[in-house]
Amino acid sequence: MTVKQLSMPELADACGELGITHVGLWREPVQEYGVEATAKLVRDAGLTVTTLCRGGFFTALGPDERAAALADNRRAIDEAAALGTDTLVLVSGGLPPGSRDLGAARERVADALAALAPYAEDHGVRLAIEPLHPMYASDRCVVSTLAQALDLAEGFPAHQVGVAVDTYHVWWDDQAPAQIARAGAAGRIHTFQLADWTTPLPEGVLNGRGQLGDGSVDLREWKGYVEAAGYRGPIEVELFNESLWARPGREVLAETAERFVAHVIR
Amino acid sequence: MTVKQLSMPELADACGELGITHVGLWREPVQEYGVEATAKLVRDAGLTVTTLCRGGFFTALGPDERAAALADNRRAIDEAAALGTDTLVLVSGGLPPGSRDLGAARERVADALAALAPYAEDHGVRLAIEPLHPMYASDRCVVSTLAQALDLAEGFPAHQVGVAVDTYHVWWDDQAPAQIARAGAAGRIHTFQLADWTTPLPEGVLNGRGQLGDGSVDLREWKGYVEAAGYRGPIEVELFNESLWARPGREVLAETAERFVAHVIR
Repeated sequence: MTVKQLSMPELADACGELGITHVGLWREPVQEYGVEATAKLVRDAGLTVTTLCRGGFFTALGPDERAAALADNRRAIDEAAALGTDTLVLVSGGLPPGSRDLGAARERVADALAALAPYAEDHGVRLAIEPLHPMYASDRCVVSTLAQALDLAEGFPAHQVGVAVDTYHVWWDDQAPAQIARAGAAGRIHTFQLADWTTPLPEGVLNGRGQLGDGSVDLREWKGYVEAAGYRGPIEVELFNESLWARPGREVLAETAERFVAHVIR
Repeated sequence: MTVKQLSMPELADACGELGITHVGLWREPVQEYGVEATAKLVRDAGLTVTTLCRGGFFTALGPDERAAALADNRRAIDEAAALGTDTLVLVSGGLPPGSRDLGAARERVADALAALAPYAEDHGVRLAIEPLHPMYASDRCVVSTLAQALDLAEGFPAHQVGVAVDTYHVWWDDQAPAQIARAGAAGRIHTFQLADWTTPLPEGVLNGRGQLGDGSVDLREWKGYVEAAGYRGPIEVELFNESLWARPGREVLAETAERFVAHVIR
């Protein structure tokens, strides 16, 4: 999604040129190119798919909407399996229209996980609950903290349900380092994602995630937390940023790789 | 601030017409009209000033900036005393330019409180630390939760330092009800403020606070939490909202009073 201006083949080529061997994919571009075609493309390019984003949106009140959401999440699990990734990232969904009950919405997320976790295991896919920044609590994700995500995940075995740790969403939270330790001890850090926090936030606050190094997040520190918690998996960079999308995708991918070296691993 | 389009005399008149007997004031319009003139105006109008907003912005690194911030906060305490309110609301400030260290910034807030709390007590003024929504953590307020605000406040007696509970900032936080109970048990709820949460958020996310009843916050529920915690003080409505500011102030004040009855106390 960081370089969504690239087509799937362009993405695979650019990764190859830059020596990038792992890539996280989103469902929409995968579906557009075709799930099987994408699976073949990344396989032929020697790319490993780290995660598929995203399932979720479990909070509807009506039975038809809820059944449709579960069916769509089963398709997402199928797609993840077809792409050869073991992890599907879940964004819970926000409050249904007219509702003010965050607690009840969070309970519906738990119900949906119970319906999906065995199906996911049968397909070799782990579910990763991603807490989103509290500014998305009403319209996108009622799970706002790692503590809440882990409370939900702990209803299931770790190989079925864990969490996604994204610096953009948790960097402000002084409880997050302890929750990362809790997640790591239970083997529940299913992915680790980076984005920097920059202001002013754009209208709608969706597409203002900062390029690594441009913002307020001490990325090395957060990498240290997940590593201290035992995480050894891939590190994803997930930037939704209009100004990055407006530039040539290969240039943005190369810049992101350079920033990753300079601000995360050096 | 909800009706900042009204001049001080217009505000006093409108409150009188609507039977509003308490008003929270901000420093800038008070200074513009004059502190003593405002004090006389509200006294003559029979208005009680609930709180003065705001002191704070304690997080600068340089000694000159820090000294200037403390001096400005002493003036804010003087102004609060002159206006006859016992409460000065504090917004901590964000990260200094180039800093990524939220923890150190929070420590500087504690240092500033230690410098100011005795001065405030000498002037009959309590300090109310206001946690702001985590979306302001980098540029406005490194204190993002009631738990953090109380951790800071508990370094001082309750009659010196407490917290401001604002629904806009805490509504997403499943730990907030327990923290309100903690604050109330210690006599540290120094004010209770209402705003609703509406989306999409505007660019910069400052001026999108929703009119009561327009958003996702169960205002009655939050009123119940502070009341159960023993709070019996005034309830302030603090809306920063461009569309409300664009309308006639008396109309907005009357609407706000109606919404307060319909969504909070009925």
